[in-house]
Amino acid sequence: MSQPQNAISPRRDEDFPEWYQQVVKAADLAENSDVRGCMVIKPWGYGIWENMQRVLDGMFKETGHKNAYFPLFIPLSYMAKEAEHVEGFAKECAVVTHHRLESDGKGGLRPAPSAELTEPLVVRPTSETIIGATYAKWVRSWRDLPILINQWANVVRWEMRPRLFLRTAEFLWQEGHTAHETEVEAREETTRMLGVYEQFAREYLALPVFTGEKSESERFPGAVQTLCIEAMVQDRKAIQAGTSHFLGQNFAKASGIQFLSRSNTQELAWTTSWGVSTRMIGTVIMAHADDDGLVLPPRIAPAHIVILPIIPKPDSRDAVMAAVDKLAAELRSQTYAGVPVRVEIDKRDFGGGQKTWEWIKKGVPIRVEIGPRDLEKGTVAVARRDKGPKEKEFLTTADFVAGVAKTLEAMQDALLVRATALRSAHTAVIESKEEFYAFFTPKNSERPEIHGGFALAHWNGSREVEEKIKSELKVTIRCIPFDDAEPGTCIFTGEPSARRVVFAKSY
Amino acid sequence: MSQPQNAISPRRDEDFPEWYQQVVKAADLAENSDVRGCMVIKPWGYGIWENMQRVLDGMFKETGHKNAYFPLFIPLSYMAKEAEHVEGFAKECAVVTHHRLESDGKGGLRPAPSAELTEPLVVRPTSETIIGATYAKWVRSWRDLPILINQWANVVRWEMRPRLFLRTAEFLWQEGHTAHETEVEAREETTRMLGVYEQFAREYLALPVFTGEKSESERFPGAVQTLCIEAMVQDRKAIQAGTSHFLGQNFAKASGIQFLSRSNTQELAWTTSWGVSTRMIGTVIMAHADDDGLVLPPRIAPAHIVILPIIPKPDSRDAVMAAVDKLAAELRSQTYAGVPVRVEIDKRDFGGGQKTWEWIKKGVPIRVEIGPRDLEKGTVAVARRDKGPKEKEFLTTADFVAGVAKTLEAMQDALLVRATALRSAHTAVIESKEEFYAFFTPKNSERPEIHGGFALAHWNGSREVEEKIKSELKVTIRCIPFDDAEPGTCIFTGEPSARRVVFAKSY
Repeated sequence: MSQPQNAISPRRDEDFPEWYQQVVKAADLAENSDVRGCMVIKPWGYGIWENMQRVLDGMFKETGHKNAYFPLFIPLSYMAKEAEHVEGFAKECAVVTHHRLESDGKGGLRPAPSAELTEPLVVRPTSETIIGATYAKWVRSWRDLPILINQWANVVRWEMRPRLFLRTAEFLWQEGHTAHETEVEAREETTRMLGVYEQFAREYLALPVFTGEKSESERFPGAVQTLCIEAMVQDRKAIQAGTSHFLGQNFAKASGIQFLSRSNTQELAWTTSWGVSTRMIGTVIMAHADDDGLVLPPRIAPAHIVILPIIPKPDSRDAVMAAVDKLAAELRSQTYAGVPVRVEIDKRDFGGGQKTWEWIKKGVPIRVEIGPRDLEKGTVAVARRDKGPKEKEFLTTADFVAGVAKTLEAMQDALLVRATALRSAHTAVIESKEEFYAFFTPKNSERPEIHGGFALAHWNGSREVEEKIKSELKVTIRCIPFDDAEPGTCIFTGEPSARRVVFAKSY
Repeated sequence: MSQPQNAISPRRDEDFPEWYQQVVKAADLAENSDVRGCMVIKPWGYGIWENMQRVLDGMFKETGHKNAYFPLFIPLSYMAKEAEHVEGFAKECAVVTHHRLESDGKGGLRPAPSAELTEPLVVRPTSETIIGATYAKWVRSWRDLPILINQWANVVRWEMRPRLFLRTAEFLWQEGHTAHETEVEAREETTRMLGVYEQFAREYLALPVFTGEKSESERFPGAVQTLCIEAMVQDRKAIQAGTSHFLGQNFAKASGIQFLSRSNTQELAWTTSWGVSTRMIGTVIMAHADDDGLVLPPRIAPAHIVILPIIPKPDSRDAVMAAVDKLAAELRSQTYAGVPVRVEIDKRDFGGGQKTWEWIKKGVPIRVEIGPRDLEKGTVAVARRDKGPKEKEFLTTADFVAGVAKTLEAMQDALLVRATALRSAHTAVIESKEEFYAFFTPKNSERPEIHGGFALAHWNGSREVEEKIKSELKVTIRCIPFDDAEPGTCIFTGEPSARRVVFAKSY
């Protein structure tokens, strides 16, 4: 069976959005369900999420947090308590109005009119209000603070233009919710968790991210300050991959989280919230996949290695399968990035070519073939996802097993280097409005179909300027970095600017 | 501060249901939220669930399953596809009818009439129908089978009489959903997963369970056969702690899961589903807790050990805290039941008595005190949850650390022995209808407020007999065991009986 030049059609440079959909499909990560905007996350996609969860969960616990679980449903009246919050989420809320079905008399079902809820319930789009109401009951004195809790959960935000992993009506995420005695502590927490996200993106997703603060217009509804991590993907757009919000006393006020202070006064608590979601899977795909399909950072790959038995004749089957099982056991006894090496064995009776291409498209870091001749020689044929699809290295089994953790780490490192190089190549310091407009106008970039990338430019801090750029170029301020505070002159107005900010098109 | 004789009031023998609520509260496991029937699972309760999840997830993977995720919402028309299924769940379904909120003009919110869904969505009470519809797309040939998938998720079944952990409108669970080529394979899977649950209950929850089949009236709606594990708790009632369903071809037919067989014919797949939920936490509480609060099997305890620093004078603080941190590190380097020993340090500035009682009520297996005198002597004061609250053993630190895994295992084993003894003491072979009615009539038991326990009795297999017993005594057939197939005579009708079945009152 002949394979096309590339396994994914179209290529990235032909049609990036369509390429993305095809990679998701070819890697068997997820699919649309019959429920509009809700996806089915298939085992290979969910395996990535499980690895993300395991690592992040460990990092949250290391920083003193515990997990808990709060209700899926939020009473309508709770949503209304924080004005900006409800304004931000009302348009995308799924609402439960009945608690029973009955026959509609035509062979179908309908919500039973006699079971209409007195107060409708909103399916949580985020849990600040329901958790705030709970914390209000838990907190009496400063001794009850801080509360450092995380929740792994599903949330629903109705989506008119859903896209697998990137924007879905239901998605999986974690939401940290903390309450503190002082503003300083709450701000420290907000920054600390952004740091966790930045470290996770770099060390596990092989993604360099810009960290900083959102401008007012991009802030979480109800927050005083929203911090974020922003990654560049291969079409040079930005993806917001995680956010950490300093909520001030806004939600404490709305929910009544009050405490008796050390000086015997009643005070409002200071709260934070922070979250990352299955959107990170979409980010990883867009950042690392290539024209042959998914490329997975080894640290989050559901399997590090797939073993493909080669069985030319039935009589070699038992010997090959025994060798495969032995190799799998040896590999699993190796440790990579603190966990046992994850191995899949593909024993299906398909042609080897088809199986190989399936695993290339799934992005498994290492493929190993073992056939009767390898048994004789004590070797294995090793193929790496970061080399050409036909390229194989023949190693003794012992050498391969002994070096596997190092190989995986080298592949992980190389992805970070490549992603960092991409970002560097397409991040420009922009000094004038004309240059800025040219940068974001596709015909001016070397690839005619896309824009320049991330622009670091001075801005006067005004919302009007932001809105004009957004409406004219679909470019927004992705973040106001922490680390580059050199003052200058706004390239749009000539007014003073405190620092350069990061502009980009985004998902 | 003086403590009452027992930390929980009322005692088990005074008012078992109220005792249960008080244990949940005193152990800080969960609380009711303002959303009717939905609970907040607090960190200590969620920590138990995390341990259950981790172990079960490993067992599912060992038996060849992978995790995936399916939509929270189910179109109304899907629910209607399997007649018995919808009949079983229609009365407890939460229904989403709108996807947007708007101002109600009176300062509040309402579901926007313009955003009413064409087809209402049901919040999943269980996922056979939505997963079936998905599998129908995945399966073409016998080569696509088996599908062995599990999902960790929240589900909603509207509850009129909610009770923390035991019956809540929203609960957390896992649901396995598998599809097979043959009936034999599907039946084997159903039995295999029941075996996993039985093993988990015994080895981790320290609970002996009866395993068997449900009678027709207690079957999962739409199933051909429902297998279950049934535990006895301390008021001698039964709790169904897990179920495994052989669904035959019912759901495959309803959803269209068809495949081209090895002999080139179109066949319907054979499916199974199986689940356990946060109800297991309620089961553990009712089975093991005592009049001083929760008693946790060490294998699922969020912490195995709590270290309580004793600081009589401020100047000893640093030395004690350093010793506490060192001990914690040493303990964490020990392994118990395949995982590092889990240690909490309670550094709060409360009185020692109050802290000790909090941890007794939370059911932590081992409490360790370290004060300045212990530092001098190189000892620790060790208290076990299975001994009296004031009882302490003084051990050298080295001996304590070296023996900790054995101590925990001895405590785990002792709980299973005790639970097994309780069940044996209150499981009776019943030979006549009179004896049966006497057994389940409280005044005839040695404790006037409760009934006898589990009755093993012959039954003719008729639904009428079952219903009469249920209405007269509130007693049901908990399961038809696999292992006791000696025929006899039905004690209610004098008709032939294939085997004794297990009767009990139940939660």
